Amino acid sequence: MTASSGPYKRPSKKVSDSSLVSTYLMRPEDANPAGNVYGGSIMKLLDGLAAAVAARHSRANAVTASIDRMDFLKPVYVGDLLVLKAAVNCVGETSMEIGVRIEAENMRTGVVTHTAPCQLTFVALGEDGKPEIVPDIIPETEEEKRRYEEAIQRRNERLEAQKAE
Amino acid sequence: MTASSGPYKRPSKKVSDSSLVSTYLMRPEDANPAGNVYGGSIMKLLDGLAAAVAARHSRANAVTASIDRMDFLKPVYVGDLLVLKAAVNCVGETSMEIGVRIEAENMRTGVVTHTAPCQLTFVALGEDGKPEIVPDIIPETEEEKRRYEEAIQRRNERLEAQKAE
Amino acid sequence: MTASSGPYKRPSKKVSDSSLVSTYLMRPEDANPAGNVYGGSIMKLLDGLAAAVAARHSRANAVTASIDRMDFLKPVYVGDLLVLKAAVNCVGETSMEIGVRIEAENMRTGVVTHTAPCQLTFVALGEDGKPEIVPDIIPETEEEKRRYEEAIQRRNERLEAQKAE
Amino acid sequence: MTASSGPYKRPSKKVSDSSLVSTYLMRPEDANPAGNVYGGSIMKLLDGLAAAVAARHSRANAVTASIDRMDFLKPVYVGDLLVLKAAVNCVGETSMEIGVRIEAENMRTGVVTHTAPCQLTFVALGEDGKPEIVPDIIPETEEEKRRYEEAIQRRNERLEAQKAE
Amino acid sequence: MTASSGPYKRPSKKVSDSSLVSTYLMRPEDANPAGNVYGGSIMKLLDGLAAAVAARHSRANAVTASIDRMDFLKPVYVGDLLVLKAAVNCVGETSMEIGVRIEAENMRTGVVTHTAPCQLTFVALGEDGKPEIVPDIIPETEEEKRRYEEAIQRRNERLEAQKAE
Amino acid sequence: MTASSGPYKRPSKKVSDSSLVSTYLMRPEDANPAGNVYGGSIMKLLDGLAAAVAARHSRANAVTASIDRMDFLKPVYVGDLLVLKAAVNCVGETSMEIGVRIEAENMRTGVVTHTAPCQLTFVALGEDGKPEIVPDIIPETEEEKRRYEEAIQRRNERLEAQKAE
Repeated sequence: MTASSGPYKRPSKKVSDSSLVSTYLMRPEDANPAGNVYGGSIMKLLDGLAAAVAARHSRANAVTASIDRMDFLKPVYVGDLLVLKAAVNCVGETSMEIGVRIEAENMRTGVVTHTAPCQLTFVALGEDGKPEIVPDIIPETEEEKRRYEEAIQRRNERLEAQKAE
Repeated sequence: MTASSGPYKRPSKKVSDSSLVSTYLMRPEDANPAGNVYGGSIMKLLDGLAAAVAARHSRANAVTASIDRMDFLKPVYVGDLLVLKAAVNCVGETSMEIGVRIEAENMRTGVVTHTAPCQLTFVALGEDGKPEIVPDIIPETEEEKRRYEEAIQRRNERLEAQKAE
Repeated sequence: MTASSGPYKRPSKKVSDSSLVSTYLMRPEDANPAGNVYGGSIMKLLDGLAAAVAARHSRANAVTASIDRMDFLKPVYVGDLLVLKAAVNCVGETSMEIGVRIEAENMRTGVVTHTAPCQLTFVALGEDGKPEIVPDIIPETEEEKRRYEEAIQRRNERLEAQKAE
Repeated sequence: MTASSGPYKRPSKKVSDSSLVSTYLMRPEDANPAGNVYGGSIMKLLDGLAAAVAARHSRANAVTASIDRMDFLKPVYVGDLLVLKAAVNCVGETSMEIGVRIEAENMRTGVVTHTAPCQLTFVALGEDGKPEIVPDIIPETEEEKRRYEEAIQRRNERLEAQKAE
Repeated sequence: MTASSGPYKRPSKKVSDSSLVSTYLMRPEDANPAGNVYGGSIMKLLDGLAAAVAARHSRANAVTASIDRMDFLKPVYVGDLLVLKAAVNCVGETSMEIGVRIEAENMRTGVVTHTAPCQLTFVALGEDGKPEIVPDIIPETEEEKRRYEEAIQRRNERLEAQKAE
Repeated sequence: MTASSGPYKRPSKKVSDSSLVSTYLMRPEDANPAGNVYGGSIMKLLDGLAAAVAARHSRANAVTASIDRMDFLKPVYVGDLLVLKAAVNCVGETSMEIGVRIEAENMRTGVVTHTAPCQLTFVALGEDGKPEIVPDIIPETEEEKRRYEEAIQRRNERLEAQKAE
């Protein structure tokens, strides 16, 4: 996921230009009859927010290409407040890896549960439905730079795993 | 809406302890057949986020007592991204005024429409369903202090208007 | 909000030509985890019904311009039946004030709670998205006439308050 | 579906004590991709309103026992306003036949389509989940009396058809 | 509902080419406050699945023409798993009778409740909104043939009842 | 994920005892404004059906522990019919791996798109919220046996990857 080179000057955007926060009160319709919030309900919210970040970065029709494996180590219950923070980790020519951090807050006690972040990849589509070049990304803060490096590493491991097959 | 006094030491919380941000992509079910988002759809989202802020400040069952007059000066359309920012403006003994700022972003152009903020009042209820004392509020930033002063002024004007009747 | 004058004969419609009644059983998704129906849920229903009345009166795309301050003096609970009655109070050149009366009925006891009515203003938009002249209104019953007078008075007070600023 | 007799004096209620009106703007989620409102969407709304009427008449947990055959002779489209009027037609010991009249209004032209009424039967259940005696019904207007007679006739025909089998 | 004859060779499809199965966990929003699933909620699901079968058989816009009387002999509760199986029973020139079998499974005990099947009739509409000829149906299994015969018999009885009026 | 051994005789169930099929017509609320169905919407449906299979196998409260990486190689559009088939692949002491196969059918052309299957792991919880032993699984058909072997292999690879870290 390197930037494009050559005479064409590809525009760049900061991570903060497209990052988003959102908040969801977990409701009975998000959970099974025992009150445990479905993993799939959380993934739908993750993907919806990540899609909005990808659309803001690319100003194009951004569609989900992949969602990384997700472990639901700690239960989330009806009545908890889910706070999601999504930002571009790194970009390819036409793709964007979006990272989403997840917190669940017990609304009576205020205790917050942090969950491992999730990564999703989106592809930008043009009016013709074909992949479209997206702006390059500029990580600024230390955390943005760390997430950028980790995303590049994940990508290299995946490419090597594909070669090995 | 002043803080309680006397031997009982009422606890205090910062505005930032309970403030929340949320993001909503406007969808066909939020709008009329012509694609104009209903004022009522926006108010439902405002109230839901403000209720979560009030519940975080009071750690109680916070219910809507009033919603101030709202003017929808600029249209919001299906496909726009609504970003709401809610925080406690000031508190009474058992009530909290929550202010919500509203931005609507056109997802293709990135143009953001700011709307006048909306104020809602919530009352904290205890297990017995009766009003419960809420923590005092500590405005810290310049903006938090300005919003605190404006909320106190609105409250005084309302009390005077009630006397005049 | 007086009728237009001059050679063009603006059509007139009766209040009863566009008034509507609707009924909603309050469900868990309308309420907070403690079972108190959200003020915002009620406002969404109010606005949706008022928008239908405005569309029936104008036979145009009617969008919410403002919603008056609303006080939720009495709680509404999951399982209550909400009955809303909406009618045109008065009209301007391109705007309509719609009044909505609210009743909440406890379905087991039959006890009905009346709430203060709410006023909403809608603007009629033409195919080009610009305000469009709406038919004049004919209040017929005593109640329709009283609501018409009160709406005119509210409008005058608002105009004076704007001058005073 | 005759009233109970004997020393126990069964209470009686008027048709107008429990009848309800409701209004629904048909939305994309109620229709197939071509914009035709699903018959099943209309039946869900019918049944929900009829259930509320049955619960108001019996002040008990009223559950659907049967829904009569329904013909959808005229199409309903997204954007139409559905107006449903539901009332008790007649009652048995523990059951109530509710009739629902259906109108669909084109919101631009105002043209209203009337559909044949639909009948649903509900049974009142007590706290123990067993059928509970419901109040007798008093038809007052000419229309209420006609619908009462027709309901009795339908019931007799059904009983004869069962004997013939 | 016999097949068309003559020089035009109408295509035929097997029952299994269009039959579908679907599964729904009954949730609080499908039920009344006492936890009894609404008959109307079940009919909406029935009609949605039957409409998909009709669309698969006709590859056209299939709209509900009628839904047969339905008796809800056994209650369905929140938390039950509803399993619906829908298939074409027989076809007319432009219409299709779809039969839906209904099972409700208690998810803790595994006990399954069978309900009497429901029949719905759909009409296939062309691009111009007018009825369109649908493929003939080929019942293959014993059960498909039995359901075909019963559907033909229901149709004949209905035609005779219409003559008798 | 091997079966438990020893004097306690753990019960066994067949794959077909708990497998489920479900059908969903993709609607505007499942998709972005351009009509591309969200990956997250599909994952929510996958997880909901897989959870029902896990609950049928364990007759316990089954909660999502992990969802494997998923690639959305082919777009799904509003109006497509999604058909999901879910079955137990293999079980551990208290966990179950559920595999879900995904087909998307264009309703006008009948063209079906197959997508790579997705695996989810669920844990069975008892009344006390603690993991509960689940029945062993009996793969019967060739396909069930192949999926069982693949699931065991995935598990071993994951355990080795954890050791290597």
